[in-house]
Amino acid sequence: MDDAYINIRTSDPSEIEKESFAIISSELEHMQVLINGDIPVESAGERNKITQVIKRCIHTTADFDYAKTMYFTDGAVGVLEGLIRGGAVIVTDTNMALAGINKRELAKYGCSAKCYMSDEDVVREAAARNMTRAAVSMERAMKSYGDVIFVIGNAPTALIALREHYDSGDYVPSFVIGVPVGFVNVTASKELIMGTDIPCIVNTGRKGGSNVAAAVMNAVLYGMR
Amino acid sequence: MDDAYINIRTSDPSEIEKESFAIISSELEHMQVLINGDIPVESAGERNKITQVIKRCIHTTADFDYAKTMYFTDGAVGVLEGLIRGGAVIVTDTNMALAGINKRELAKYGCSAKCYMSDEDVVREAAARNMTRAAVSMERAMKSYGDVIFVIGNAPTALIALREHYDSGDYVPSFVIGVPVGFVNVTASKELIMGTDIPCIVNTGRKGGSNVAAAVMNAVLYGMR
Repeated sequence: MDDAYINIRTSDPSEIEKESFAIISSELEHMQVLINGDIPVESAGERNKITQVIKRCIHTTADFDYAKTMYFTDGAVGVLEGLIRGGAVIVTDTNMALAGINKRELAKYGCSAKCYMSDEDVVREAAARNMTRAAVSMERAMKSYGDVIFVIGNAPTALIALREHYDSGDYVPSFVIGVPVGFVNVTASKELIMGTDIPCIVNTGRKGGSNVAAAVMNAVLYGMR
Repeated sequence: MDDAYINIRTSDPSEIEKESFAIISSELEHMQVLINGDIPVESAGERNKITQVIKRCIHTTADFDYAKTMYFTDGAVGVLEGLIRGGAVIVTDTNMALAGINKRELAKYGCSAKCYMSDEDVVREAAARNMTRAAVSMERAMKSYGDVIFVIGNAPTALIALREHYDSGDYVPSFVIGVPVGFVNVTASKELIMGTDIPCIVNTGRKGGSNVAAAVMNAVLYGMR
């Protein structure tokens, strides 16, 4: 079954979403993909939360590879929920990821989301210091707020900057969603974050993207409703 | 080779992009994927343009399936270039796709990009008429402008609305980029557009997304530089 055609006249996206998730669940069973077989999971509750994140990434991409490649630190989703309840600031590395995150859900917890990539002074500083705008954006976020949830769907240099500041001992991110996509430095930059004790959700390998970054954030937000 | 690690200090994204496209080209050759084997192509120039669009979709997703599933009507990229040169209006079905399209390139041709999904009167009208916001957005676009390039990365109902108006004889879209992602109505909605004489670029099957929609638009814009 490649496509379910339920009712073209429906004006209820939640009905379509429910049907979509049923298809995803059914096909994952059919593929006998054991989600999170080797992921450290504290409890059945956390395992269920992880599964919801992975399913939303598949929902966003129609790509079942995400069932095999996503990495969660122990209790990651619970940590993220706690940060959201505490009103953490979300900082993205693309305006696309920013556009994709559900602001109405964020507002329930007093959270806000920011992206500095188009800020003129970030552009200027990046040129002056021979850095990427993404790396400068990360530094801006580190300086500006307490708890920051870094949502990275594009720039390996964002993850690399976070690791460098972690290594130098001057900053430990509260949480990193690390899902850049691409062919150069991408896999390595994800491994740099996974090689720390920073709480994180990462999609290992090449795949990811701004849409996936937003999907991870939204999956956690929807799980809190 | 899963990941090329060229220089984490580079601040030149164009260097990384060039390397990424070289990797994509090399792997496509290695996979012996014959891009566009069965696509009607007028000329070598058009074939080259199609290849650039497909490669940018792979660049955006790290998913080589796009080499096998994308569909282009005859001369599609040339038609799109002509519309852009003529200052057509781009209308998207998500704010994410809108965020991802390169506005600086669009501005060179006097083009603008719009998304009506969050407009209050669209939300109101959709509820009143029991339609999706995406379908109402399409009608809004049809009424408001001359040449519209419809860039659809999410909502099957957007493509279905375009087909219904086409069938009723009251509107023929100048161009449709039809790459919704998902499991319900998605494949069918794409086939509805492919079953007309509307110039289009479609990714057949389930895959696509707002990021892919923006990538198709940007690939064409970058090819015009």
